[in-house]
Amino acid sequence: MTAEEGEGRAGVGRIEAFSDGVIAIIITIMVLELHAPISERMEQLWGLWPVFVAYVLSYAYVAIYWVNHHRLFAHATRVSNGLLWSNMLLLFTLSLIPFSTSYLGEHHFARGATILYLLTLLLPSVSYAWVQRIVRCSGRQSEAARAYHRQSLRKGLLSTGVYLLGIPLALVTPWLGIACAAGVAMMWILPTGPIDRLFDASA
Amino acid sequence: MTAEEGEGRAGVGRIEAFSDGVIAIIITIMVLELHAPISERMEQLWGLWPVFVAYVLSYAYVAIYWVNHHRLFAHATRVSNGLLWSNMLLLFTLSLIPFSTSYLGEHHFARGATILYLLTLLLPSVSYAWVQRIVRCSGRQSEAARAYHRQSLRKGLLSTGVYLLGIPLALVTPWLGIACAAGVAMMWILPTGPIDRLFDASA
Amino acid sequence: MTAEEGEGRAGVGRIEAFSDGVIAIIITIMVLELHAPISERMEQLWGLWPVFVAYVLSYAYVAIYWVNHHRLFAHATRVSNGLLWSNMLLLFTLSLIPFSTSYLGEHHFARGATILYLLTLLLPSVSYAWVQRIVRCSGRQSEAARAYHRQSLRKGLLSTGVYLLGIPLALVTPWLGIACAAGVAMMWILPTGPIDRLFDASA
Amino acid sequence: MTAEEGEGRAGVGRIEAFSDGVIAIIITIMVLELHAPISERMEQLWGLWPVFVAYVLSYAYVAIYWVNHHRLFAHATRVSNGLLWSNMLLLFTLSLIPFSTSYLGEHHFARGATILYLLTLLLPSVSYAWVQRIVRCSGRQSEAARAYHRQSLRKGLLSTGVYLLGIPLALVTPWLGIACAAGVAMMWILPTGPIDRLFDASA
Repeated sequence: MTAEEGEGRAGVGRIEAFSDGVIAIIITIMVLELHAPISERMEQLWGLWPVFVAYVLSYAYVAIYWVNHHRLFAHATRVSNGLLWSNMLLLFTLSLIPFSTSYLGEHHFARGATILYLLTLLLPSVSYAWVQRIVRCSGRQSEAARAYHRQSLRKGLLSTGVYLLGIPLALVTPWLGIACAAGVAMMWILPTGPIDRLFDASA
Repeated sequence: MTAEEGEGRAGVGRIEAFSDGVIAIIITIMVLELHAPISERMEQLWGLWPVFVAYVLSYAYVAIYWVNHHRLFAHATRVSNGLLWSNMLLLFTLSLIPFSTSYLGEHHFARGATILYLLTLLLPSVSYAWVQRIVRCSGRQSEAARAYHRQSLRKGLLSTGVYLLGIPLALVTPWLGIACAAGVAMMWILPTGPIDRLFDASA
Repeated sequence: MTAEEGEGRAGVGRIEAFSDGVIAIIITIMVLELHAPISERMEQLWGLWPVFVAYVLSYAYVAIYWVNHHRLFAHATRVSNGLLWSNMLLLFTLSLIPFSTSYLGEHHFARGATILYLLTLLLPSVSYAWVQRIVRCSGRQSEAARAYHRQSLRKGLLSTGVYLLGIPLALVTPWLGIACAAGVAMMWILPTGPIDRLFDASA
Repeated sequence: MTAEEGEGRAGVGRIEAFSDGVIAIIITIMVLELHAPISERMEQLWGLWPVFVAYVLSYAYVAIYWVNHHRLFAHATRVSNGLLWSNMLLLFTLSLIPFSTSYLGEHHFARGATILYLLTLLLPSVSYAWVQRIVRCSGRQSEAARAYHRQSLRKGLLSTGVYLLGIPLALVTPWLGIACAAGVAMMWILPTGPIDRLFDASA
């Protein structure tokens, strides 16, 4: 009775609510890293730009995960032990983003910090694939749902690949790594770009 | 399939829940800036007044946004990519308010801090207009809904205008800028003031 | 159209959800004041007792407000401007509790800190009465609901009175003030004590 | 009317929502202990390992409580005073975990810190048993529900016993205490291990 209890959509709703809470906190506590400078001089304020840019980038990532989570769970039909724990792992990996964001911002996009940041982006992309696999296999999915899963699986694989590529590129120069991360974000936010059409064509 | 999936009201409910979470955190973390003074002397406590006044003002703002968001989303009929991302942008701009509030309070309503504060109030007022436009155009709206949109669009434009006016006024003296911000807050909180009647008459 | 839009129970649900979020954050951030001491000596840990006791007391208060809020809103039938803003004021007054709790704990229940604490307990008790009045007058209430309102109004008045009494008593010795606050908490938590029966008899 | 008001599932939903909020915050604020080191040297980052391991362990615990809470409340049929307050006590005991986690991590799994940590794990395990008792006795439970309660009560008792055993073992060497805590976590996360089958057989 512990596993696979099949509470149906009501149980799914509570997983969504808990995930919403955790993601809302993750996305919001990152702004606490923007400490108001003591001195009133403008230079002090400008000096916060790396922390601010890191916040914008991470806000975009966590927002993308929420949007994808929202869409994915609309297709979840029942609660299983696997769904509960893969989702918990996803939330755990997302919870590391505020740490690496703060490290990235405070070290002004240095090489080591950029690689650490790309690694913390890699982790949720891998665990998200696990959650997705469980939802996909947990019940009869409509044709539209299957098409959605196919496309977002490909986009997910592409993202993971770009992060992996970003790590050696960050060794050359950190900004190439950041560009990889920013490129993935753009791919997910822009609704029907050329990449989506590419996937639709090949699907 | 990525964009415009049309999940109907259920999907809207989860956007509301996530926004509630983020806004609840934004409104509450601002109070963390009220650090309990180490010394027990009363002057130390009185010295917190600028931080406290800044908190009251920002609490009122974020509360107004929540109330308006609550009303606006009651009219949202379906989830679209545009709604998801415009709402994410709105939450992002709101998440900057704790930073500028803390800066305003710690610098005792100085000129630069007041202008920064007015700028961070401008950003959500612009992004809110975008969310509103998407809700308004996303489905058949009742006559009552259209009247609501018309009126709150006008109030929104007026607010944006008063913030913009507040920036040069803050250069003269910061308190004029703060008065502009406080005036906008009063306009939204007082339920059916003369301004509303003015809008009703001209509608 | 701005005020009194009458969305019915669905709108009430979102106010509940937002209030839940804010109260959940208020109750949880107070534990952040329990800083782990650097030194590993046991005395350091024992030295945290005033912060811990203040946390326990404030946790009980905020929990009582949540329980009462939960019960009160079960009787709310529609959303009005008054309900939205009186609830926002209640949440604002509750949000000051973490500050005065931390002040109380860090100053080891000193006289000034105790009076400040009793004052921050007074504020939500007054604003709660306002929310209650709005719910009570906002629609036809069942006989059971009216009896509930009557009883909790009396208990609320009694609480406010005890807090007011606690302030001069705290001038004599702070622990008398704390005893007043703790007494009110006990009255609310213990389910059907003699005080409740007293109210039932006099109702 | 104060106690046992019997609002049915709607009232239970709001307790779930509030508990979700509190647990989401507890699980997320622990990551704030992972302060980004100032220096960019790798050793500084490696030096964070005890804080990170303590975070992973506590994340697993709080996640287990959420999963169990989610399952238990699916069987709750009505809101009673006892359910409200036993749940509040559970959330209180869980709220102490971030403190003892931070103490454990900062003192590098020292003897005293490990015993304090095991004690804070004991508290929620006891208060969870109280919540469970109230749900179990609060209405007619299906045969499946009764089997679930029986099994999770036994697992709960076993957990409490292992924590109690861990305290003297931690006096020998802290890692034995941590092993006890980790063992309990594994027992709950792994879905149908030999322990579950053992319980099923003896049930």
